[in-house]
Amino acid sequence: MRIHFLNPNSSQSTTDAMITSLDQIRDRIPAELVCATLEEGPPGIERQAHVDALPFPVLERLRATPAEAHVISCFSDPGLHLCREELEVPVIGIAEAAYLEAVQLGRRFGVVSIGRASFGRHLRQIRQLGVESFLAADRALEIPVVQMNEAERVIARIVEVGTELRDRDGAGSLILGCASMGVYRPEIEARLGLPVIDPVQAAAIRAAALLALRYPRLS
Amino acid sequence: MRIHFLNPNSSQSTTDAMITSLDQIRDRIPAELVCATLEEGPPGIERQAHVDALPFPVLERLRATPAEAHVISCFSDPGLHLCREELEVPVIGIAEAAYLEAVQLGRRFGVVSIGRASFGRHLRQIRQLGVESFLAADRALEIPVVQMNEAERVIARIVEVGTELRDRDGAGSLILGCASMGVYRPEIEARLGLPVIDPVQAAAIRAAALLALRYPRLS
Amino acid sequence: MRIHFLNPNSSQSTTDAMITSLDQIRDRIPAELVCATLEEGPPGIERQAHVDALPFPVLERLRATPAEAHVISCFSDPGLHLCREELEVPVIGIAEAAYLEAVQLGRRFGVVSIGRASFGRHLRQIRQLGVESFLAADRALEIPVVQMNEAERVIARIVEVGTELRDRDGAGSLILGCASMGVYRPEIEARLGLPVIDPVQAAAIRAAALLALRYPRLS
Amino acid sequence: MRIHFLNPNSSQSTTDAMITSLDQIRDRIPAELVCATLEEGPPGIERQAHVDALPFPVLERLRATPAEAHVISCFSDPGLHLCREELEVPVIGIAEAAYLEAVQLGRRFGVVSIGRASFGRHLRQIRQLGVESFLAADRALEIPVVQMNEAERVIARIVEVGTELRDRDGAGSLILGCASMGVYRPEIEARLGLPVIDPVQAAAIRAAALLALRYPRLS
Amino acid sequence: MRIHFLNPNSSQSTTDAMITSLDQIRDRIPAELVCATLEEGPPGIERQAHVDALPFPVLERLRATPAEAHVISCFSDPGLHLCREELEVPVIGIAEAAYLEAVQLGRRFGVVSIGRASFGRHLRQIRQLGVESFLAADRALEIPVVQMNEAERVIARIVEVGTELRDRDGAGSLILGCASMGVYRPEIEARLGLPVIDPVQAAAIRAAALLALRYPRLS
Amino acid sequence: MRIHFLNPNSSQSTTDAMITSLDQIRDRIPAELVCATLEEGPPGIERQAHVDALPFPVLERLRATPAEAHVISCFSDPGLHLCREELEVPVIGIAEAAYLEAVQLGRRFGVVSIGRASFGRHLRQIRQLGVESFLAADRALEIPVVQMNEAERVIARIVEVGTELRDRDGAGSLILGCASMGVYRPEIEARLGLPVIDPVQAAAIRAAALLALRYPRLS
Repeated sequence: MRIHFLNPNSSQSTTDAMITSLDQIRDRIPAELVCATLEEGPPGIERQAHVDALPFPVLERLRATPAEAHVISCFSDPGLHLCREELEVPVIGIAEAAYLEAVQLGRRFGVVSIGRASFGRHLRQIRQLGVESFLAADRALEIPVVQMNEAERVIARIVEVGTELRDRDGAGSLILGCASMGVYRPEIEARLGLPVIDPVQAAAIRAAALLALRYPRLS
Repeated sequence: MRIHFLNPNSSQSTTDAMITSLDQIRDRIPAELVCATLEEGPPGIERQAHVDALPFPVLERLRATPAEAHVISCFSDPGLHLCREELEVPVIGIAEAAYLEAVQLGRRFGVVSIGRASFGRHLRQIRQLGVESFLAADRALEIPVVQMNEAERVIARIVEVGTELRDRDGAGSLILGCASMGVYRPEIEARLGLPVIDPVQAAAIRAAALLALRYPRLS
Repeated sequence: MRIHFLNPNSSQSTTDAMITSLDQIRDRIPAELVCATLEEGPPGIERQAHVDALPFPVLERLRATPAEAHVISCFSDPGLHLCREELEVPVIGIAEAAYLEAVQLGRRFGVVSIGRASFGRHLRQIRQLGVESFLAADRALEIPVVQMNEAERVIARIVEVGTELRDRDGAGSLILGCASMGVYRPEIEARLGLPVIDPVQAAAIRAAALLALRYPRLS
Repeated sequence: MRIHFLNPNSSQSTTDAMITSLDQIRDRIPAELVCATLEEGPPGIERQAHVDALPFPVLERLRATPAEAHVISCFSDPGLHLCREELEVPVIGIAEAAYLEAVQLGRRFGVVSIGRASFGRHLRQIRQLGVESFLAADRALEIPVVQMNEAERVIARIVEVGTELRDRDGAGSLILGCASMGVYRPEIEARLGLPVIDPVQAAAIRAAALLALRYPRLS
Repeated sequence: MRIHFLNPNSSQSTTDAMITSLDQIRDRIPAELVCATLEEGPPGIERQAHVDALPFPVLERLRATPAEAHVISCFSDPGLHLCREELEVPVIGIAEAAYLEAVQLGRRFGVVSIGRASFGRHLRQIRQLGVESFLAADRALEIPVVQMNEAERVIARIVEVGTELRDRDGAGSLILGCASMGVYRPEIEARLGLPVIDPVQAAAIRAAALLALRYPRLS
Repeated sequence: MRIHFLNPNSSQSTTDAMITSLDQIRDRIPAELVCATLEEGPPGIERQAHVDALPFPVLERLRATPAEAHVISCFSDPGLHLCREELEVPVIGIAEAAYLEAVQLGRRFGVVSIGRASFGRHLRQIRQLGVESFLAADRALEIPVVQMNEAERVIARIVEVGTELRDRDGAGSLILGCASMGVYRPEIEARLGLPVIDPVQAAAIRAAALLALRYPRLS
């Protein structure tokens, strides 16, 4: 069995980060976890125009890729409802999977966002899932893009923001609001003493669950 | 000043119904209310594939149409967030406007849907707006398409469903879940004794409000 | 058509502030906006005894004033339910209108109150409307009355409180919790980068909406 | 110590019913429970005009009546907030007390109302208290006034409505939505197998609690 | 890796039903799924006295059983919080797992209970998890125990109750409120057209997820 | 009539503190308030293992103690549901009573906890009661045990934490999250200007209410 993770932006570095993150859990998922890049996607997915351009390219790629389940690996879940409606196999969005994983932990969660611009989009999706009462707060890293490659700086800033989420906002878990930060998960958990949710890993888990449960197709 | 209503499906009959509905309130809106049809749209908007094909055609059309505000006149609000982000003037979706108008009335609302298939999409949007506690229930007409032109049958069926929403589910107002039923509003209100919300009219009202209030552009 | 705004306190300066605030939107409301003072009202409305003395004087005055809609222009909405029940035309309270306008914006709102003493009354009304989940926080200016006429000091203090509401409490919009602060709206919006809701303007908008929609009278 | 119950309508029969209801619990309240009628009140309290005429007469009477706590004994709680603000001793409204007693039982409650006209007022108060999630449903007796004296008919109708609230709406307790039905409480509890809350008794309990707890005065 | 399911009642027939239910998903869980019976448990777990007698016997048995994760396989989740606090490996309760699986499906869920007596306990746990807004309704089979072995009767009754939950209460999924009904899942799903959640399977899924995610131990 | 308070830990100092706290209200409760210590209990109740060891010892002791109502006087409410099910007379848990007393006050409440470790357990119980929307925040004293006997230090620290709850978190009342802090209530109320809830007193009030209301036994 195969679970296919499609990074809908064209950055190979994001896909590489997904692969590294999945390496942490690969031995305990009874399926092959395959990652791919949507080369025709935009380099980053920041505006609604990026999101709304993606449903059909994503659908087409998923349709062309043999897999028992698909994961759309971008924290905006572009094309999720379209692909669910058109494909026979389960389709997971990483943001939806991360929020619902946080609910499973029973605590209020904090979101570590790249920038403040995504707060509105996050709140809309959290409400859409019906789990707003679990949201402690959403706080942004606001790191200059050029420093996103310096792991130590990024981790230090995530820990700083995570500390605020934990101590001021009462967060009992953290969600990393991006497909490429899972690699830092173990270190952040160790430093903050909180469970940290990588959305790519959460989606892998949810895909495996749906493969096992074999629900009839939801209209 | 002009408010532009775009029917994103290609059916002129829907556009005509919008015009008739707006005739009920036109004298009390301080703007010209202009309706148009997106000829390249699908004949009806039922599947997610219809919705997801529309953002850019809708955006392009809105951009090309001089107006102080735009209304996307389909109960799935296709392209709403894209157009809001890309255009300088206010953009309204008729479903969002209808749900929020119902909240203003202070009562739980019932939704009169064409078919059961849209229940999931409606619930997602109601939750996204944060107003699920105002939803009494969503019930479907399930009328064969061929009878949708027989006004008497349609009204009789809406009254039947509305009675259930009022008496069994505790609805204190009704939302007509489609862009083409506003023409029946006065008769349904008279028969049921409840305020009835036509989403096209609700959007006209909201557009006029935003024109008056002149908020700074929301990012 | 005429919308009648009654300031139920006897301070002409409040009525003047309402007029100035309405001047910002007057050109876009298809009705004459007329403001009046209830001379027999108290100079200010701070205690419940002030609020509870007003329903019948307000009703009598509204009844005697020809208008297609009435606005009770005090943030305690005195006499609102009585006037709604007794009069044939729509009656709006400015606090109710402001809270519901904030909900339309989809974000959590902050309330800028004159003093802490009104927190309890505000929370009761916000809950009564069913929209407590949209409340970010209520914070007070606590400005000595003598300084309320020094515009610069007032604006500076509103900006200070608004900054806390935005950055600490996560407010995405602000409500000015008084009938006389609308005049500062443009400057506050510019300095804080948030939509700011003046309750008098919000009520004008809502009155115009109800005039257009012509609901059957709600019992 | 004395708890003073003021029936703000002028019907001695209501006051008599209150006395009979309080007889059920009198031996277990460490205070004298004294009932009085506001002779200048209206014969019944049905419209907002009745409610809004009462705050000052009620306040005056309470002020003139020596007691360690006062109960306003009408399911519309007229004058509650005024009396709380003006008097040094605790003041209880029977509706507020009944709703909060129901919350203490941990189950969803059903409201047995006299007529449908009060549904809106009830929902506003339930929301104001922040306990809407405990409301199963509000259903009305709609008994012709002339039959309200025929105990057997009234009980039979309450049981009928209570059965619907229990079996269709999932109510785990019932609130009798009027000051004069407490006398039927034991029989209704026996027939329905649910705890039944008489608002007059609930207010007595709450008054006794506040006398014991001696909170500092809440502003 | 091994996931150990402990049936804390002494009925081998329940354990057998669990085994049959797990057979449906065993091929897609990357762990050995081992079921055992707590012979010293009560024959059935119906009263709080049964539940409260179990924490230490369950803990002792789990401690003595080598496994990478444990499932307490009774819809009352007896001993769950104790075992979580005392053991190093993940411990899952089947009721908690079922409710949270339902939340993942995004729809309101209906609960199919054995008898009405468990409604209160279910509501308490659903609220404790913070997901009461997802509950459509809880309805009971009320089948005489002697008929619980006649599969056809049981299925027919579940379908009857499930139809009510779906059509009257608006449930979009069903939870089977007992450890021994999973064997009927495929047939019930086929007849009702809704996803059906067997709590034992849901717990297996959750255990596998926690094994993969390897959170630091939650205090 | 007698209300029996059982301290389920073995520390006589806790029982003494309960007695002193009850002295504040004893004259206004129409029952004898008797406090006892469960000598076989643990010295303190901190872990779930302490809580889960208590239901049957507590039940046995309550059963052996003649009283018209029982209070389990530990903020973890050990054995509450068991004792309710098994005994004919009302049984109260002090934590449940405190949370519901706070709801009666109509404001958001803050919890003053001994240590952070109890936050999770508190949140679970607050949710279970359905009143999470009333929780402002839970903050911990984190005082070294050795200093818990120095009244001045303890009061100073409670005031410090209470100030944060009031000013940063918006708490309108405080709950003392332990059976032994009621003795400080008057001083804390005076310093903070907020109503302060001692759970032991709140339970006494609730027991007296149930004795008066004589509900039929809830299954």
